[in-house]
Amino acid sequence: MEINLPTVLAEVTAAFERYERALVANDVAVLDELFWDSPHTLRYGATENLYGYREIQAFRAARPSAGLARTLGRTVITTYGRDFATANTEFHRAGSERTGRQSQTWARMPEGWRVVSAHVSWLS
Amino acid sequence: MEINLPTVLAEVTAAFERYERALVANDVAVLDELFWDSPHTLRYGATENLYGYREIQAFRAARPSAGLARTLGRTVITTYGRDFATANTEFHRAGSERTGRQSQTWARMPEGWRVVSAHVSWLS
Repeated sequence: MEINLPTVLAEVTAAFERYERALVANDVAVLDELFWDSPHTLRYGATENLYGYREIQAFRAARPSAGLARTLGRTVITTYGRDFATANTEFHRAGSERTGRQSQTWARMPEGWRVVSAHVSWLS
Repeated sequence: MEINLPTVLAEVTAAFERYERALVANDVAVLDELFWDSPHTLRYGATENLYGYREIQAFRAARPSAGLARTLGRTVITTYGRDFATANTEFHRAGSERTGRQSQTWARMPEGWRVVSAHVSWLS
C-alpha cells in the first residue's frame, strides 16, 4: 500500500480545505455534499453522536451559524493507496484556551472524495 | 467500492474484538502490535494527543492498568473494499454516567490489519 502518493495527497488536501472553508462559513450545502450519503456514515460531535447521513444532515440544518470561526494546528493528512485517507487536526476558537480535535476518514466514492466517519471533541 | 464484504467484515471485527480484550486486560504487547508502526500513526486520547507510533507506545507503557474495564454499545464497523475499515463504538465505565466514544481507522498492511488513526473522547 503506497502511502501519501503526491497526486492523491493533493486531492484529499483540497477536499479537506474545502470542507474547512464550508464549516467556518456554515455552507451547509457543501458540508452535506462532502459527507458520504449513506446510513453507514457516522459523526461523533463534541456534544452529540450522529448515526447515518440523515442525522448528520438534520444536525447541520439546525446548527446556529455564529461562532464557527477557528484556527487549525498540527494538521496531519495521510493517504493509503489511491482511495482512502485520514485527516486529523487540532483547532482553537478565539477567546478559548481549549484544544479541539477533528478526525475524518475519507474514501473515494464514485461521486468523489467523501467523509465516511468523523469524530470531533475537546481535549479533557 | 464494495461495502461490508462479509469476509472482510469478519476479519476486521475479529481484530477489533482482539484489541478490546487487550485494552481491558492492559495487554500492552497486543495493543502495540495492533497499531501501525509508523510515524504517520496518530491517536487522540481523552487527555492527550499522540503523534507517531513511538509516542503511542510510550503512552501504553506508562499507563496505569487499573480501571480499564468498560462496556461497549452501538458498535459500528464498516469496511470499504478489501483493505480499509472504520470501527466506532460508544463505551461506559462502571460507576460513571459519562459516554465515551472510540473511533478507529483500520488498514490492511503487509503485516496484517492495523489501526492507522484513533480518537477517544468523552461526550461533553
